[in-house]
Amino acid sequence: MRVMILGGDGYLGWPTAMAFRQAGHEVQAIDNYLRRKIAQETQSDALVPNPLLPERAAVFERVTGGKIEVAIGDCCDFTFLSGELQKFSPDVIVHYAEQPSAPYSMMGYDEASATLSNNLTATFNVIWAVLKHAPACHIIKLGTMGEYGTPNIDIEEGWIEIHHKGRSDKFLFPRQAGSLYHTTKVLDTDLLWFYVRTHGLRVTDLMQGPVYGLSTDEADLDQQLSPNFHYDDIFGTVVNRFLVQAAVDVPLTVYGRGGQTRGYLNLRDTLQCVALAAANPPAAGELRILNQFTETFTVNQLAERVQRVGRKMGLRVDVQNVDNPRKEKEEHYYRPVHHGLLELGLKPRLMSDDVVAAMLGQVLRHRNRIVVERILPRVRWR
Amino acid sequence: MRVMILGGDGYLGWPTAMAFRQAGHEVQAIDNYLRRKIAQETQSDALVPNPLLPERAAVFERVTGGKIEVAIGDCCDFTFLSGELQKFSPDVIVHYAEQPSAPYSMMGYDEASATLSNNLTATFNVIWAVLKHAPACHIIKLGTMGEYGTPNIDIEEGWIEIHHKGRSDKFLFPRQAGSLYHTTKVLDTDLLWFYVRTHGLRVTDLMQGPVYGLSTDEADLDQQLSPNFHYDDIFGTVVNRFLVQAAVDVPLTVYGRGGQTRGYLNLRDTLQCVALAAANPPAAGELRILNQFTETFTVNQLAERVQRVGRKMGLRVDVQNVDNPRKEKEEHYYRPVHHGLLELGLKPRLMSDDVVAAMLGQVLRHRNRIVVERILPRVRWR
Repeated sequence: MRVMILGGDGYLGWPTAMAFRQAGHEVQAIDNYLRRKIAQETQSDALVPNPLLPERAAVFERVTGGKIEVAIGDCCDFTFLSGELQKFSPDVIVHYAEQPSAPYSMMGYDEASATLSNNLTATFNVIWAVLKHAPACHIIKLGTMGEYGTPNIDIEEGWIEIHHKGRSDKFLFPRQAGSLYHTTKVLDTDLLWFYVRTHGLRVTDLMQGPVYGLSTDEADLDQQLSPNFHYDDIFGTVVNRFLVQAAVDVPLTVYGRGGQTRGYLNLRDTLQCVALAAANPPAAGELRILNQFTETFTVNQLAERVQRVGRKMGLRVDVQNVDNPRKEKEEHYYRPVHHGLLELGLKPRLMSDDVVAAMLGQVLRHRNRIVVERILPRVRWR
Repeated sequence: MRVMILGGDGYLGWPTAMAFRQAGHEVQAIDNYLRRKIAQETQSDALVPNPLLPERAAVFERVTGGKIEVAIGDCCDFTFLSGELQKFSPDVIVHYAEQPSAPYSMMGYDEASATLSNNLTATFNVIWAVLKHAPACHIIKLGTMGEYGTPNIDIEEGWIEIHHKGRSDKFLFPRQAGSLYHTTKVLDTDLLWFYVRTHGLRVTDLMQGPVYGLSTDEADLDQQLSPNFHYDDIFGTVVNRFLVQAAVDVPLTVYGRGGQTRGYLNLRDTLQCVALAAANPPAAGELRILNQFTETFTVNQLAERVQRVGRKMGLRVDVQNVDNPRKEKEEHYYRPVHHGLLELGLKPRLMSDDVVAAMLGQVLRHRNRIVVERILPRVRWR
């Protein structure tokens, strides 16, 4: 297959590019370094600096012999994106090219506007570039479990049959997200579904939970191939925050009461999921939605796990509840299904104590680089 | 009240501005003439030329003594919009400032992109200008019944209680629109609902059906105060198309089988609805959704009505089924509720034969200006 990765410099994009290449596919990675720019603006640099995309590709080629094509440019520029599609002629596009930070999207007008504009325009341009230049191409779009929010009913896999006053019909599962960033993904899904049903696109929308981990078969070949690791309040996840806090002996900060439940997955499982989606494309005119996570736990359970593992490794690891900077339910029902990817063949690699210990070990090796001021929330939902 | 009308030069915007002024409110009308520009680009000029907004306001002041403030500018320009809000300090904003043509939004990349960008950016800017400069202001947003599409279940007033696997929760009613234009209104609602629930805005989202008519108390005072009348395939509605076809003795063109059912209302009733919404604002943190139409009928029923009335007036009036340029169901279940506005006091003025005869009379007076080539569809949903 010819696989084009949009957002190919990102935490998921780069490992995805390497994995497809190692599996024998032709791969092009495209990025405009938006995340790097925002990280600089907000003093949220990654724990270890990562080489730029062409250098990453050069290291990868040196180590593996495999070539990853690289293009630096903006998916919001339709002429650029169309040109790349015409040249590369992809069978699959993996679309990660979005501003991915919820706190950034909640900072103020400029950041919210940039997030809305970037994410919607990129998705809209992908749709139209495919319609014009590669209509049979399978678009794999990264959505988020956050699109669903935390409803009081079981979360189905993208769609729901609603029975109402003696009649019934099938609809997109209702979505109500917790940040503007997550809301842009709701809008993306609406846009994709419109063009799927009127113009016959084939799309997989992956509703992914928070991803953790730095280890993949390819990333482990050379330190220079590692994905970026953010622990700041802008790009860091709760998993990374806890790992870093454990490493530098500051208490793990649980936002609010800590009952927030989410569906998590290992970076290695993200790679499996995307590969499975690519190998099993939906029909033209089908929007296939897959819930992409392997296990659910609360923030408190995660904190306990990091604490248990950290203490075994001789760290102190206290846990502290802090004022929640976000507007979200801190105790709620949460029961999302996730059948589709298992049926396609996903073999989950759960967050065992060994996995936590390995991540903590990686963080500890860079302990002296950690800037504690970056960890605590600087952005509040008002 | 201080009432700011965005899109104040439009078919609804101008009559709304006049009606609020005549009711004794302070009124500012803002427009960037986008509809006029698109009408020129697409050879879709209105049946009778309308004066520009400052001239309309001058005529209105001459005739009634009432002053309507005017500002020409683009709601997508946040600096401009913020400045106007700070100067005018509105209690209510009526937001009509969107690209309103479904066929235009389906022409190609440029038109689709312009529609998405204009409509989302305008709504986003209204939200933020209110948050920053007038947080208690009531936003009355014009949505469309088209957001719901034509589901196989009864359409509720914006919200639905979903019972699923023994549990239940309340959600936005599922929406699935028939054009990109209508889809942008779905996205608008998602955006508004996000900021309502996180930032405490007060918003009324009016899900309006197709509006017909040229007569309002103020418009009838002077020909120069008339709203614009489009009969072309870009801005014209099915009602206007049939009126014009009857007037020039070409067959009424029913798209497909003509079973498409929609909820219609008289322009006078739109004015009532907006006034009632403004007089009864929702609470802070409430997104109130009202279905704004007074009666439903099929395209075939509408064609029969225009035929019956036209023949009484001595016109020939044939009806012809033509290939449907749109992707839509031509026979479908359609049962939308519309309680909210009736409960607020709406007195519907239905489409009687007299109302049709009056509209047909107005069109016949300008019969020699009708350009038949503009009537038939030039844009096809592919």
